[in-house]
Amino acid sequence: MKIPDLKTAARLLLDFDNILILCHASPDGDTLGSGSALLRGLLSLGKRAACVCGDEIPKKYDYLFEGVPLFDGPYEHIVSVDVPDKKLLGALEGKYGDRVELAIDHHGTHKPFAENTYVEGECAANCEIIYLLLKEMGVGITAEIASCLYTGLATDTGCFRFANVSDRSHEIAAQLMRAGADVAELNRILFETKSRAQIEAERRVLEGLEYFADGRGALAKIPLSLKRETGAAEGELEGISGIARQIEGVVLGLTLKERDDGSIKASVRANPPADASVLCGRFGGGGHTGAAGCSFPGMSMDEAEAALLSESERYLKELFP
Amino acid sequence: MKIPDLKTAARLLLDFDNILILCHASPDGDTLGSGSALLRGLLSLGKRAACVCGDEIPKKYDYLFEGVPLFDGPYEHIVSVDVPDKKLLGALEGKYGDRVELAIDHHGTHKPFAENTYVEGECAANCEIIYLLLKEMGVGITAEIASCLYTGLATDTGCFRFANVSDRSHEIAAQLMRAGADVAELNRILFETKSRAQIEAERRVLEGLEYFADGRGALAKIPLSLKRETGAAEGELEGISGIARQIEGVVLGLTLKERDDGSIKASVRANPPADASVLCGRFGGGGHTGAAGCSFPGMSMDEAEAALLSESERYLKELFP
Repeated sequence: MKIPDLKTAARLLLDFDNILILCHASPDGDTLGSGSALLRGLLSLGKRAACVCGDEIPKKYDYLFEGVPLFDGPYEHIVSVDVPDKKLLGALEGKYGDRVELAIDHHGTHKPFAENTYVEGECAANCEIIYLLLKEMGVGITAEIASCLYTGLATDTGCFRFANVSDRSHEIAAQLMRAGADVAELNRILFETKSRAQIEAERRVLEGLEYFADGRGALAKIPLSLKRETGAAEGELEGISGIARQIEGVVLGLTLKERDDGSIKASVRANPPADASVLCGRFGGGGHTGAAGCSFPGMSMDEAEAALLSESERYLKELFP
Repeated sequence: MKIPDLKTAARLLLDFDNILILCHASPDGDTLGSGSALLRGLLSLGKRAACVCGDEIPKKYDYLFEGVPLFDGPYEHIVSVDVPDKKLLGALEGKYGDRVELAIDHHGTHKPFAENTYVEGECAANCEIIYLLLKEMGVGITAEIASCLYTGLATDTGCFRFANVSDRSHEIAAQLMRAGADVAELNRILFETKSRAQIEAERRVLEGLEYFADGRGALAKIPLSLKRETGAAEGELEGISGIARQIEGVVLGLTLKERDDGSIKASVRANPPADASVLCGRFGGGGHTGAAGCSFPGMSMDEAEAALLSESERYLKELFP
């Protein structure tokens, strides 16, 4: 059932006790910030609650769960946060996938799997919803809760840089600062610290950067060997994917990435007049004007590169005859 | 004279007509955003006004002055924005340095030079003051004015990432979005675009990165040859200076930069327990715990590197015996 408004979602949560909160696998700041903030809010109301994730929680997010008492069930109610598809529960899908009573999510593409679903596709971060929900539930926003919520808000918006940021995002950030979120320290942890492996991976990607079509196109490659040789973790490579499209004059920024199973995936970022979804469509992929993706089944990195480069050059010739 | 409050500053400006606004030399987004927003505000009140800078305005800021009519004097009143010292008027100092009637600035270190001075050291960006001032003057915040103000607010806070961000910064960002600032496009222009020269300069600095003292220290070098060989402009090298201190585990991040006159300057960033001002003090420099600087008069890059590295190793041995 679709829940029509925050008030109804809040009432449902207030009726629950013994609650287990599920985060999505490969956890990021938004799912963990949502989970920890909701958990702290429920505990402050005297409820029993716990928060779990199918994958290990990256060390840098340790502070989110600091000082939270453990609770080992039994759980009567299951709530998911920032999980757009039950598959994304990962290792928890088998046990809890069909038992979620309330899914709270901000993905417009949410595939319903819970008994009750509250989706706000206009929110830049799921933590925006959790903030409004906690207020609706009458939870006092402590400095700890504010720091959890800021974590999701800042990470899902690239620290207020992405196109999903709204006036509400900034409004909530202001309120979280007033509630005591230590934004300077959080930004240092979340955005200012890189591992040596990450620095080395960045250097290698920059070194391998190729320009084509008179500098209108740029291609970056992230082969599996980059992960192996530098020791960079999956999450540490995410920022790197953006490099090719940031270059002045580039209208087609291509990134080729080799997955763990050896398959090759391209992410394409485009600036006008180029349309990323047109180029990716020619390889059976899709997406938006500005950002799209496609795969190259059965191809090696070199084969995928040759195919993508020649099609990109053809497409750029159509645009700039 | 120190102006006690915004109301008084606003009244002074409302009394003026034929106003020339001065920005600081080596202009950044905050001085240009302040100048263009104030200019547009004054024009909207039917006044005659113009805005000038001692140096050329970087092309990416063209939009700030788009559609603004030219005015070539005579100027009866001179106002400076974001100028903490009259020396920083650069090429305009000789002509206007002693004629400024009102200086509006957010630098706590402001050295008074104007007849009237309004300084708000707590504002992360001078554009925060200009926003409050325009409201006080009864100026309607158009989408164009909002975009100018957002430019300064975002650039001086590293897009809301630096420690100077306050709840008011986010509050004003929310209000500027509501007034129509095209934040997604502005962020793309301001933060997502790098020149090929900048990408190449970054790659070279990463390549030359040196770790010492078991990875507790990192050193990046920016010799003049880097500028010459890559064609990167001064402003494009600024982000690079931060690299050494971002690395996980590093408590002393050193950057050595060769200036145009061949002299060598170090910027030191420290994480606890290291204190950047202690290390720089040993070379006659100074600053804060987290960030400090010093110079190496008469030394070549290699000599400065040897001196700084050996002192840094000694200092780290004191901290980690």
